[in-house]
Amino acid sequence: MITDYSSAIEKYTPSSEERKKLSSISDKARDFIDSYCSSEGIDADAVLVGSVAKGTNLKGADLDLFIRFDRKYSRKEMETLGLDIGHKVLSNGIERYAEHPYVTGFMEGVKLDLVPCYRILPGQKKVSSVDRTPLHTEYVKTNLDRSQLSDVLLLKVFAKSIGVYGSEVTTSGFSGYICEILVIEYGSFVNVLKTFAGWKGSFKLGKNEYVGKFRDPVIIIDPVDDDRNAAAAISRENLSRMILASKLFLKGKEKDFFNLERPMGPFKRDDRGTAIRIFSVPRPDLIDDVIYPQALRMKNSICSILEREGFEPMDSEVEVSDRVRILIECRRDRPPAFVLHRGPPVDSDNVLDFIETWRHRDVLRGPYIKEDRLYIDLKGGRKSIEEAVLGDIGPLNIGKSLNRYKREIGIESPDLSAEDPLLQRFLARGLF
Amino acid sequence: MITDYSSAIEKYTPSSEERKKLSSISDKARDFIDSYCSSEGIDADAVLVGSVAKGTNLKGADLDLFIRFDRKYSRKEMETLGLDIGHKVLSNGIERYAEHPYVTGFMEGVKLDLVPCYRILPGQKKVSSVDRTPLHTEYVKTNLDRSQLSDVLLLKVFAKSIGVYGSEVTTSGFSGYICEILVIEYGSFVNVLKTFAGWKGSFKLGKNEYVGKFRDPVIIIDPVDDDRNAAAAISRENLSRMILASKLFLKGKEKDFFNLERPMGPFKRDDRGTAIRIFSVPRPDLIDDVIYPQALRMKNSICSILEREGFEPMDSEVEVSDRVRILIECRRDRPPAFVLHRGPPVDSDNVLDFIETWRHRDVLRGPYIKEDRLYIDLKGGRKSIEEAVLGDIGPLNIGKSLNRYKREIGIESPDLSAEDPLLQRFLARGLF
Repeated sequence: MITDYSSAIEKYTPSSEERKKLSSISDKARDFIDSYCSSEGIDADAVLVGSVAKGTNLKGADLDLFIRFDRKYSRKEMETLGLDIGHKVLSNGIERYAEHPYVTGFMEGVKLDLVPCYRILPGQKKVSSVDRTPLHTEYVKTNLDRSQLSDVLLLKVFAKSIGVYGSEVTTSGFSGYICEILVIEYGSFVNVLKTFAGWKGSFKLGKNEYVGKFRDPVIIIDPVDDDRNAAAAISRENLSRMILASKLFLKGKEKDFFNLERPMGPFKRDDRGTAIRIFSVPRPDLIDDVIYPQALRMKNSICSILEREGFEPMDSEVEVSDRVRILIECRRDRPPAFVLHRGPPVDSDNVLDFIETWRHRDVLRGPYIKEDRLYIDLKGGRKSIEEAVLGDIGPLNIGKSLNRYKREIGIESPDLSAEDPLLQRFLARGLF
Repeated sequence: MITDYSSAIEKYTPSSEERKKLSSISDKARDFIDSYCSSEGIDADAVLVGSVAKGTNLKGADLDLFIRFDRKYSRKEMETLGLDIGHKVLSNGIERYAEHPYVTGFMEGVKLDLVPCYRILPGQKKVSSVDRTPLHTEYVKTNLDRSQLSDVLLLKVFAKSIGVYGSEVTTSGFSGYICEILVIEYGSFVNVLKTFAGWKGSFKLGKNEYVGKFRDPVIIIDPVDDDRNAAAAISRENLSRMILASKLFLKGKEKDFFNLERPMGPFKRDDRGTAIRIFSVPRPDLIDDVIYPQALRMKNSICSILEREGFEPMDSEVEVSDRVRILIECRRDRPPAFVLHRGPPVDSDNVLDFIETWRHRDVLRGPYIKEDRLYIDLKGGRKSIEEAVLGDIGPLNIGKSLNRYKREIGIESPDLSAEDPLLQRFLARGLF
């Protein structure tokens, strides 16, 4: 470790009191579960997983305790028993749903997740992806040197400060486990950054025979499962951010990469000469990871209408908060008086039918030949963005849980001076 | 031949008086040249080439007489002697320039071109492409059956009526020689049309080993020169027109394919919601085949400015008459307030320089990351089309003979009701 980073390490490393407290709480919960299972004849045990178990936790981390059941239990039995045990440990706990239902709550002011899973060994077939988590914890504890703990911490803080930390769908970034694998593989925080700074194209880590199976922008073969890309969640843009931030950091061009409270940079509210609209629907009572892909689908459906009607959507920004809100910037707020309609190639079998169909219709121009195809300039309806979207959204899918709100889509034409976080994020878009 | 075509054949076949007259004029000119050469000790002879020589001429054809020189003459000698002989034959003749200079004029009311060339044999290396013409004439005379003469005539009229007859650059269509090869190859007018009607993709005729050398939309290996694509002039669009017209004709969907005086179809002068401009410069005193490629270059140069400045050029039409005129339709007559500037990929070596360069400039937004690249929303100048083109055309090449007119580019915003042939051609664009 280079001493320059000591202040950052100090700032984000939990104090010894915090460590002791986390350790005492997790011991207490684990002992309770183990003795409860033993007395009830349940073949299950508790295991601390996640960053605290691995010693790579930042200040203020949560506790993740997994309850590992023998595989003789059916999924239903495991879930019922798991929730039952969870509520016994956390009297104030509430149920949540990831791959299995689980219980989350607070113990002495620390957030604690109690997640049921199956007990598997490395290489053994898992039932669901949570079963793999204890193996990840074991792998990191075995392979990460104590001296590298602060490297992982720095890498996490670095990733967090550039907005690429976390594998949730809304972030599509680098998980804690990925940060750990990278430090194990490249030795240190600085070496990980050097690797990214010099990287060209898609990022690949692992044996060719396994890497070759994937097409993601970042491919990091899971050390405990050769058939899994542990980095599948990471988007192309977040890889780009990591590469660029690494270059800037190593050149000393950017001092602020360990500051997690960076304010939004200055930005312009000048007229962009475009048409910006914010489309929104109520937020269903579901977790972000479920809603976010649907918000993207809604965005794509709206963009397809805008594209077809000639508004030329150019850029967008999505927000999932108390509403699902989608900002779309179009080149124009009135479509052209006609739409270019692309017909079949002249050498296709249906070209005469096409001509027959259009011959007597009231088109602006054509059919005419361009290159190897027929085209028609169709008269446009000259609709507004609002008319086009509300009129045409009916048959489109905007996501399973959002479809019921199709008739209630709100459309704002935001004033560029508005104090709207979505609008501001759009206008202030910078490198990180 | 099917009797249906007899009226078309009759309409376009030269009368026996016209044939006799052409024959008598060409004999007279040829005899004069041959005896002149013989008396002056010039090793050259005259040969009638072109459609009249082959018997495939439409009513009102010109005469083409080539003066074939022995290869012992230098190019300079051949040209001087050739022009000299030309003027002796045509006292009213004027000089023109194709691959060599030649003399053109009228004899008894018939246009006659007297073109010097070298005498070569099939397979022998030619000096310039005109040397090949006598071989073409010979090939057609040998291989085209008398009964197929009217098939060639019909094919020429058909091609003419759909606007694809002629290999000049302005037409980029099917030459008379190509029509003859097609009839020789496929046997009859109707069979040629059946071939096109069923064709998919690029048109290819000739042995694979020769065809494979070319990348043109239409490849027809010259029967007298395996290394030449005799159809290189034909554009993709004209192949498309031939395919589509053949389909329509064979289905009986279009009755008017032998009418060379088809009026322009009806068309709409409705507002297109776009910005149409006509850019023009004086026409230099050069033949169309020289000017037309330059007009295309001028069009491309202007379009590149319009594209870069955000006017979004969509369609165009070119006219070379007493001026060089280029109609361009743009999506908008004011550019957006910003231009999307694409920076380097994040994994390129110059990405930090790019950031350094732009960091302190007054941009509207960015640099920001999208996918694997940096982008900036640059403030646009909000110029008009006129300001953008006249301001930026300076360093661009608009063609060797047109560059001198860069400072005099005229720009009209045509009224859609104007009686302007270029505008009308644009608005009336149809299949043929």
